[in-house]
Amino acid sequence: MPNARPASNVDAPTKFVVAKGERYAYRRFGSGSGPPLLFLQHFSGTLDNWDPAVTDPIALGRDVVLFDNAGIGRSSGTVSNTVAGMAGHALAFLDALGVARCDVLGYSLGGMVAQQVAQDRPPVIRKMILVATAPRGGDDIMHLEKPILATPLADPALHGYARLQKIFFAPTASSQAAGAAFVERLEQRTTDLEPVSGQPVAGAQIAAFREWEQESGARFAGLARIAQPCLVVNGVHDAMIPVVNSYRLAEHLPNAVLLVYPDAGHGALFQFHESFTRQVEAFLSSESPWAPY
Amino acid sequence: MPNARPASNVDAPTKFVVAKGERYAYRRFGSGSGPPLLFLQHFSGTLDNWDPAVTDPIALGRDVVLFDNAGIGRSSGTVSNTVAGMAGHALAFLDALGVARCDVLGYSLGGMVAQQVAQDRPPVIRKMILVATAPRGGDDIMHLEKPILATPLADPALHGYARLQKIFFAPTASSQAAGAAFVERLEQRTTDLEPVSGQPVAGAQIAAFREWEQESGARFAGLARIAQPCLVVNGVHDAMIPVVNSYRLAEHLPNAVLLVYPDAGHGALFQFHESFTRQVEAFLSSESPWAPY
Repeated sequence: MPNARPASNVDAPTKFVVAKGERYAYRRFGSGSGPPLLFLQHFSGTLDNWDPAVTDPIALGRDVVLFDNAGIGRSSGTVSNTVAGMAGHALAFLDALGVARCDVLGYSLGGMVAQQVAQDRPPVIRKMILVATAPRGGDDIMHLEKPILATPLADPALHGYARLQKIFFAPTASSQAAGAAFVERLEQRTTDLEPVSGQPVAGAQIAAFREWEQESGARFAGLARIAQPCLVVNGVHDAMIPVVNSYRLAEHLPNAVLLVYPDAGHGALFQFHESFTRQVEAFLSSESPWAPY
Repeated sequence: MPNARPASNVDAPTKFVVAKGERYAYRRFGSGSGPPLLFLQHFSGTLDNWDPAVTDPIALGRDVVLFDNAGIGRSSGTVSNTVAGMAGHALAFLDALGVARCDVLGYSLGGMVAQQVAQDRPPVIRKMILVATAPRGGDDIMHLEKPILATPLADPALHGYARLQKIFFAPTASSQAAGAAFVERLEQRTTDLEPVSGQPVAGAQIAAFREWEQESGARFAGLARIAQPCLVVNGVHDAMIPVVNSYRLAEHLPNAVLLVYPDAGHGALFQFHESFTRQVEAFLSSESPWAPY
């Protein structure tokens, strides 16, 4: 009997799949004929950090697959301290699901994992959406010690999602209001939750950022090998992974459209979720070999 | 009796209107209920340089108004040697047409004129599309003496539109092929043509670029006064007005979406005309007070 309400990350059940000795937590829901879209998550985020206002409209045209990398949420194992290690887990997970080809939406740290997957096994990715992320060798990647981030992170009055609202959104009334709405949407999910990430997760992921900042050889040359159509998205006031990194991605990826949102920070995709999901749908459903859609 | 074929810049008649002692050449065509969209043209371009693949689809939703500034084409007068002077003519022209409020698509030099109009008389512009252009005080604006531009401009084998193809499009086979298709589309118009711009036009417009590069006071501070929703578009390989200028526009305009195309130069809007017109239509028809659409 068909369900009258479309699937949603508010209540999609968490599932598990075993591969290479790990048990990965994931959620998969959606309808429509597009290739599945793998979501790769940000620093310290779990399945519960995916905004239903982003996942659900996109799931109307395809399955969305939300994934907790090793050591995140209820996935077993330890968090890799390199992006390459995380990419290995993502590939093992896709293999376990039997997904030989998919689209990928990589957000922040997840965007780095997406780029690594594209380099390690090109045929598995058809199209790629890189949100608020950076190329290897990028600038000022997730330096939480910067005052603009360290101050809210150390503020004892800010907890959990309130902290996320502060650092993911720009310091304008409009962006912070969008952040509050984002938090409300996340809080709609009340059962079957993932454990919140703690210091061991943060430590390994920060180590991965530091390693990702290193580059040998010609700067950004590796991006030339990513031939897939890409959509690069950022908020113009991103304090965590500054927009200049998105400029570099668009300049060095051979086939990428760049889309930058105003009045928004790291969480631009959540702030302008109606626009973002519309743009993603148009990008993914375009039949052109070129990224423009 | 309705015409079966939609209006087109291939054969739209050139019209004339008198204001403040000048006679301005223009074309106006289209249908639909959107506010009229004023097109402001690039260095040395006339009404005949507007690609019908760009104007015509946009004209399905509104009137498009193509305009030759003073001293261009069959417009009377002399070409202003400042952007401010050109903006004054654009405003006089709108007044003569009785257009109190419109949208503006400013391309290259035309994008500078659009920014000036927005500052000189804010209420006249509802939304603005700024293509391959630069803010006042921008970087490397139309330096035709650079080898990458000077070489093709001095090549005796290149004439007219062939020269345009060379410098408006990126030096890839795909972009040059798009350039050839662009030239073919321009050549579809064979009567009621504008005279081609000569050295006096170029000299005054280059002087205007040099003046526009100057800025007093805090860099780009003037952009904060442009409150209209803006769509900023460029090709990532623009050699005439490098994409960094579009970055600065998006960073300093308070309400601008940035869209950058791959594999494209100054003529990105013509190369990816299907995408560009789709994005413009979505931007113009959005009812949000925010630029994202």
